[in-house]
Amino acid sequence: MPVVINELLGRPLLKIYQDTDCFNFSLDSILLANFVSIPKNAKMIVDLGTGNAPIPLYLSLRTKSLIYGVEIQKYSYELALKSVKINSKEEQIHLINHDLKGISKNIGLHKVDIVVSNPPFFKVGEAHQNPDMRKNIARHEIMASLDDIIKEAALLLNSNGIFAMVHRPDRLSEIIETLRKYNLEPKRIRLVYPHLEDKANHLLIEAVRDAKPGGLKVLAPLVVYGNDNKWTEEVIKIYNCEED
Amino acid sequence: MPVVINELLGRPLLKIYQDTDCFNFSLDSILLANFVSIPKNAKMIVDLGTGNAPIPLYLSLRTKSLIYGVEIQKYSYELALKSVKINSKEEQIHLINHDLKGISKNIGLHKVDIVVSNPPFFKVGEAHQNPDMRKNIARHEIMASLDDIIKEAALLLNSNGIFAMVHRPDRLSEIIETLRKYNLEPKRIRLVYPHLEDKANHLLIEAVRDAKPGGLKVLAPLVVYGNDNKWTEEVIKIYNCEED
Repeated sequence: MPVVINELLGRPLLKIYQDTDCFNFSLDSILLANFVSIPKNAKMIVDLGTGNAPIPLYLSLRTKSLIYGVEIQKYSYELALKSVKINSKEEQIHLINHDLKGISKNIGLHKVDIVVSNPPFFKVGEAHQNPDMRKNIARHEIMASLDDIIKEAALLLNSNGIFAMVHRPDRLSEIIETLRKYNLEPKRIRLVYPHLEDKANHLLIEAVRDAKPGGLKVLAPLVVYGNDNKWTEEVIKIYNCEED
Repeated sequence: MPVVINELLGRPLLKIYQDTDCFNFSLDSILLANFVSIPKNAKMIVDLGTGNAPIPLYLSLRTKSLIYGVEIQKYSYELALKSVKINSKEEQIHLINHDLKGISKNIGLHKVDIVVSNPPFFKVGEAHQNPDMRKNIARHEIMASLDDIIKEAALLLNSNGIFAMVHRPDRLSEIIETLRKYNLEPKRIRLVYPHLEDKANHLLIEAVRDAKPGGLKVLAPLVVYGNDNKWTEEVIKIYNCEED
């Protein structure tokens, strides 16, 4: 399997191990890691379904908080371990090779300040199935459904804790209903549009546990490509983890 | 009360009576009247809370369907009557001076193809209350709540009938939950942003009665003002009711 080290992003530049045959980390993860609110006093963050750990790595540029990355797939977990090591982030980033379902029993109930997730986007049977089961698990809800992930997030989070996720807009109604089912009130949404004239293809959403209903903010559109089909200035800034 | 006739929009140009002391018709209504899907075979449309009837007037440029405008406030209803008359739209637009709650008993249950509404945006007690009760009723949920309006829409609509509404993004979660409560499945959303770098201040949403869950499309952002602080080309096109 061709594993490469990509010079990832940020300053100082992070490196990340990727299997080019398998899944590459995607821009979604970076947009999410940039989008999530991080209160100054945050002490513990959990990334559910961390893959090769792009989100914990990016978050380590934004905060000193402890970051747990939970990944069920051994192969991704091992790539993630290597990436954490090569960036000397072992003190801050702790990887757990475990099903995200039930992980609150290991980490502790209602102790976490922030939970993030870039989950599988597709229901089982929906969209193209890949013959590579590792890819299927990352893309389809084979090991964990949307409900499983949001439920576990709510079990991990303390009151007023923050949950942030990237997903597909076509499931927005289900996402909002599931969040509210577990007392996670949506407070910030940002839609991601490939070009300004396209439909949104991704959705960033943040909810707060036990918060008062309503008061949702829909942030300015995040447009990925300009007229020249190159990344917009904002996306380049995000990629480089430059604060405004 | 200073009633003026504004040369409104579209080709041929519509005229609309407005009381400048009271509420002017707003861009929201035009954006909604432009946004809503109109199937070719639509025979009956209802506008709940039609005010001085900007939505029925605009819709009359898009369709030959019968259009009912329901307005509880006598004063607005009378302005609407005058506007319909001066545009010679009495054959197509029928105004009803009635509470929208229960209007399905007058019009008939599950007979309507499309229901639209630009409802009061604010809960009672929320946002600035106006000493003019007519304005309050248009802006605050004094006579009808979000739940009342959506419930009545569902009673009016036939199966696969379309409901479209303009509202504020801060109530998106409640809007989606209430739509689904009445078997109206959200299928299209468009966010309206004053400028490209602003938060969304309006939301256009369309739902289909008894439709399969999911498959929501978030359309390209609708940006009202360009860098020059003038309406964007798209908004001018919408205002003039020019089809793409």
